[in-house]
Parts: sequence; structure tokens; C-alpha cells
Amino acid sequence: MRTRAAVALEAGKPLEVMEVNLEGPKAGEVLVEIKATGICHTDEFTLSGADPEGLFPAILGHEGAGVVLEVGEGVTSLKPGDHVIPLYTPECRECEYCLSGKTNLCQAIRSTQGQGLMPDGTTRFSMLDGTPILHYMGCSTFANHTVLPEIALAKVREDAPFDKICYIGCGVTTGIGAVINTAKAEIGCRGVVFGLGGIGLNVIQGLRMAGADQIVGVDLNPDKKAMAERFGMTDFVNPAEVEGDLVAHLVELTKGGADYSFDATGNVKVMRDALECAHKGWGESIIIGVAPAGAEISTRPFQLVTGRVWKGTAFGGARGRTDVPKIVDWYMDGKIEIDPMITHTLSLDDINKGFDLMHAGESIRSVVVF
Amino acid sequence: MRTRAAVALEAGKPLEVMEVNLEGPKAGEVLVEIKATGICHTDEFTLSGADPEGLFPAILGHEGAGVVLEVGEGVTSLKPGDHVIPLYTPECRECEYCLSGKTNLCQAIRSTQGQGLMPDGTTRFSMLDGTPILHYMGCSTFANHTVLPEIALAKVREDAPFDKICYIGCGVTTGIGAVINTAKAEIGCRGVVFGLGGIGLNVIQGLRMAGADQIVGVDLNPDKKAMAERFGMTDFVNPAEVEGDLVAHLVELTKGGADYSFDATGNVKVMRDALECAHKGWGESIIIGVAPAGAEISTRPFQLVTGRVWKGTAFGGARGRTDVPKIVDWYMDGKIEIDPMITHTLSLDDINKGFDLMHAGESIRSVVVF
Ligand SMILES: [Zn+2]
Ligand SMILES: [Zn+2]
Ligand SMILES: [Zn+2]
Ligand SMILES: [Zn+2]
Repeated sequence: MRTRAAVALEAGKPLEVMEVNLEGPKAGEVLVEIKATGICHTDEFTLSGADPEGLFPAILGHEGAGVVLEVGEGVTSLKPGDHVIPLYTPECRECEYCLSGKTNLCQAIRSTQGQGLMPDGTTRFSMLDGTPILHYMGCSTFANHTVLPEIALAKVREDAPFDKICYIGCGVTTGIGAVINTAKAEIGCRGVVFGLGGIGLNVIQGLRMAGADQIVGVDLNPDKKAMAERFGMTDFVNPAEVEGDLVAHLVELTKGGADYSFDATGNVKVMRDALECAHKGWGESIIIGVAPAGAEISTRPFQLVTGRVWKGTAFGGARGRTDVPKIVDWYMDGKIEIDPMITHTLSLDDINKGFDLMHAGESIRSVVVF
Repeated sequence: MRTRAAVALEAGKPLEVMEVNLEGPKAGEVLVEIKATGICHTDEFTLSGADPEGLFPAILGHEGAGVVLEVGEGVTSLKPGDHVIPLYTPECRECEYCLSGKTNLCQAIRSTQGQGLMPDGTTRFSMLDGTPILHYMGCSTFANHTVLPEIALAKVREDAPFDKICYIGCGVTTGIGAVINTAKAEIGCRGVVFGLGGIGLNVIQGLRMAGADQIVGVDLNPDKKAMAERFGMTDFVNPAEVEGDLVAHLVELTKGGADYSFDATGNVKVMRDALECAHKGWGESIIIGVAPAGAEISTRPFQLVTGRVWKGTAFGGARGRTDVPKIVDWYMDGKIEIDPMITHTLSLDDINKGFDLMHAGESIRSVVVF
């Protein structure tokens, strides 16, 4: 079939919206009509050329929601008409990682996904001249139709709006999951969140849902304060306005340190501050942000020997097929909010405007609606 | 009263064995006759002058065992005749830290202990000319008699030999506790232990007791192999004999990485290797060793984002009054071994020989018997 897609032809260039060929689903695969997709910093990271593993030409996009049109041979968990959210972290429920019960990092299709290929080592997309176009994060949601492995699709309820729940495919789950799955924050805890962008806001509402007593947000941009308060932030700290040491200030503000701190900036210096503002004896610090290639975190080992724990999280530690449908329920039940974070809605033809809004810092999330 | 003690008069000088004055126990304190004490690298660290917080003159020593002679006002949990092990990490069971249930780092007497003083801000020891002598780690076991706070004494069974269980006051509990309390290692796990000195051997027997399937020891000295095997090591790796990358070798040897890795070297480069050889998705690395002042650990945040956890431990995460008596029971019941680690027994007059043996690498543990 043919479909319309925004294609990343090479690094550093805008996307080009064009007709492309799409082969039908092979065994274990599913054809999905994408109804909406968010535009994420990770797409920007790859499109800019900063991602050392970026491959071109490719169809980017990994925060989608849509409807199953057709299933390949052997697909049993999905049928045409099902509403789905694509998962860049699949959940095969059979590999050593899935069965460990200790991680969400399913390895079933890791190597082909990293190469921009379906599990059989080929692509489903191609240019009209036949040139293959690579998949991206196993999702390629910047296309009106896409093909994914069955294990990379979460089936969700049919009354949830695509243009909101697409964000659950990345930022919402990453931020809330970091609190619930990775930190396992408990009622009455104190949390500190560095970086009040989309991920940080979701960490904040995760802490609110977990029953935190104090939720401190840290950001250099005071314009972030109002929105963060809406999501549950109790204290705002602008490092530029702190006299003296930021870590000491945060430790004092939290009466001894954060039970859980979160880096949502990707800045390795901030990751260190996040660790060191954690409470002596038990504070845990969770790295969510993606650092530039080659950047390293560091601290004195004394920080760990006196009881702080340094962790990271990917896709919020969520097992996508199991956890994403629950998060959709939480949204529909009003336990979490997404609508205020979807600041812009665009057509596919205007997708490059979404990247412009991101660069200008004007959007939390832009969503393309097909 | 007067007692005999080995006094550290200044940094970098041998200890001087002499008569000293010892005041009786004040309220909440206990007079203990020390029957045996180990000589630890931490004593050496302070005596050498490398410890930036070292204070002199002081009576060092923190791995003791002895008998209660007299209790001060208000002491209710101990009576004359009780056998005890001094605790450099006390357990008050009343402070925020003790009550958190998340840490063993009791803060009740932290600041005075760090200054070499009893909780009331004074010392019990003095020279015969009246010059005060400082306490050390709240213990000062290099003396035939010493005074400690009640909360810094674990009451243990009376049939256990002092010259062996004194080591439970430090290295045994630190190593075994790192496995049991900090890592919470489970049956069937794979562990990697860096550094096969006294702490490393105790990590190894902790892993054996926890039911580990594989226990890899890493040390540059092949002479350590036989003893480590006696304590349960299943695989020995000499980094000098590994072709190529040590971390990659360890990941392959453990079929994907260590479920739990432990640094017992204090070398920050080794701490990094220990983290990076932990299993993707869930491997935890625990820092036990004490690094030189100012040294920093570092790694790429990707190591944590892909599921590794970086932790540290002090006194093996053990709550001394609660856990130390159990470890004494484990020794008496044959669940753990201590005897082969006590390689030398000395009189107080020969205490400096114990430091010489440590420097020469000839001892695992030297114990002074009074
Ligand atoms: Zn994303
Ligand atoms: Zn899997
Ligand atoms: Zn020691
Ligand atoms: Zn306490």
C-alpha cells in the first residue's frame, strides 16, 4: 500500500512529507493506522545528527496511538479495530529479561530495532523508487500507517482520545513510571525533580499520585513554575536565585534531603546535584535524562557509602503491554492529567513547525493529528 | 583507674604502649574489659596520617570483644559480666535514622564520636600527666579497658571466643552484611568480588551463605586464590592475565554480568569496573572500600539508565545491637568461618608488629589478645 509520511532523509535537514510504499505485516507483525503522534526531544536528537546511532533515511516518531488494520500470521493478541499504542520498549514476556521480573528492558528484538529494521532484518517502508526507508525505535509513527511487531503494541481502551494518549507512549509513562516502578516512591516521601519540561511534569504528577508530602521542582526558567504547580509541585527552586550551594539549599528545604530525586535534564552536572541532594542513609536518585554522547557522571564514593543509591530508568521501568493500558485508564479516570501538556496540535504537513516550537521552548508537547 | 593501652601520639609514628588513666562510666556509658582486638586497615589509615579527620593523641582500635565490668547510671540493657562487641556504628533505636527502617547509620552520637569524644563532649582517657587522650570511632579497643556508650555495645553469647568474634566488630559484618543487608542477594545469583583481602573473603562467604550459584573473585595477587576458594569462590580472575577488556571478560564469565558486584579495594577505577560488569537490566554494584580523600567515581549515565544500580554500604548495613549477636551465632553454628582469617595473634606489647604484617601483606587479620 501507499501512505503519507514525514521522512528524515538526512541529519540536520527538515523532514519531508511524501508518499511512501508500505508492505503489509509479515508473521508476528501488525499494520496500524496512526491517528496521532507526539514530537519528542528524542526525535529531535536523532534528526539533528547528534545521535551517534542515528540512521537515514528513516521515518522517525515513537509517541503514537492508532488502530489495528491488519494482523500478520500468528498474531493472536490483537485484531483489526483494536486501539493500540506503539512501544519502543517491547514486552515479549518470553526473554530472560522479561521473565526476570526485575527489568522492562525486553531484549527480544533489540538488535534489529537498533538497526532500523523489523525482526526479520528488512524494512516495510520504501521510497516510491524502491529505496528502503528505515524504521525508528521500532515505531515510525510519523507516518499515517506503520507496521510493528505484535510485542511492540499495547492494546488500550477504545474511548480514549488518540491525540492525548499518544503521549503515554513516551513522556507520560517515562515520568510517572520513574516514580512508581523505579523509585517505588511511597506515601509521605519528599521528592526533588530537576528539569520541568514534559518529563519533569510527569514525574511531578507521579509523585502526587504516589502521595508525596513535598514535591520540589528545580528549573532555571521561572516560566515553568505555574504549570508545574498545576501538576503538584509544592516548592519551586531556581538555581540562579539560590545564594550559596544548591545542594545544601535543597537538603535544608527537604529537611535532610530528598527521599527520591530525579534528573530530567540530561545534564551530567545536574545528575550529580540530584544524587547529592538525596537523603543520607536512604535517598535514591534516578537518572531519566539522556546525556550527550561521551558525557560522564561522577561523585565521591562517600555519597554512596553513606547510603545514597544511584539508579536510572528507561521508559519509566514500564512493561509496555502490561502497564501502558493501566496508565490510559488512570488518564480516563482523572488520576493523571495530560491535556494541559499537549500545547500544540498540528497536521502532518506542518510537522516541522512542531520542531520549531520545541527549539523555541514554546511547547511542552506538539502532537500531529492525521 | 589505670589501664594499659597502645596510644597513637601522632600521625606516622608507631603506637606507644603505656599506662593511662581511665575514668569510670558516666550516665549511659559502660566500662568494658577488652579481651581481644583486631588490627584493621582503618586504624592504619588514621595512624598513617592519610585520614583527613584523624585526631591525636588517641587510642585507636575498633574491632574488639570483651566483658562488661561496670555500667553507668541509667544503663538497662547491660550488666557486669555480659560479653560484648563494641560498635563503631551504634544503634540507639530512637533517632530518625534508626526508626526509618532503611539504614543502619544511627546519628545519635555522630558528631561527638567524630571528634573523638564521648556523647557528653569529654574523654575518659588521659595521660598520667592529665593530658586528655581522644577516643577513636567511639571504641578505642587498643586498650585493656575502655568506656563506651550503651548504644555502642552488642551483647553476645558467652561461649564465643573473644579472639575470633572481635573480627565480627568490623570486617566480618561489613563483608557479610554487604551481601545480606545491602545487596539482599538471593539464592541462585551470580556475584563478583573485587579484592580478596579480609573484607572480600567475607563477601565471598556471605554470597555462599546466600546461596549464590557463581562467586567470582578478582585480585591481582594469585596467592589469594586458595584462601578465597576455601570461603566459597568458584572462579578466580587475575586482571593481569586477562587479554582484552576486564569488564567484557567478567560479563562473559557470568553469562551476562553480575547480579551483584562488590568493590572491596577502595580504588575508584575498580569501583567503575565493578559497576560496569553488573548485569544490564538489574545488576547492582556495592561499594565497600574506602577511597582516598578527594577521589571520585565516574561512569556514563547510560550504565544506570540501562538498569544497573550503584550503591554503597557502611558496616555492611548492619544494625549492630540487633545483627551482630546473630552473626556471632552463625559463627558458633558453623554457618560462617572466621578462624582461618585470624592469621596472627599478638600481645599488646607487640601491636606494632601487627601493622608491619599488614604492610607486608602477610596477614589477613592480626589480633591482639590481652
Ligand atoms: Zn519520546
Ligand atoms: Zn522480552
Ligand atoms: Zn575495621
Ligand atoms: Zn539511632
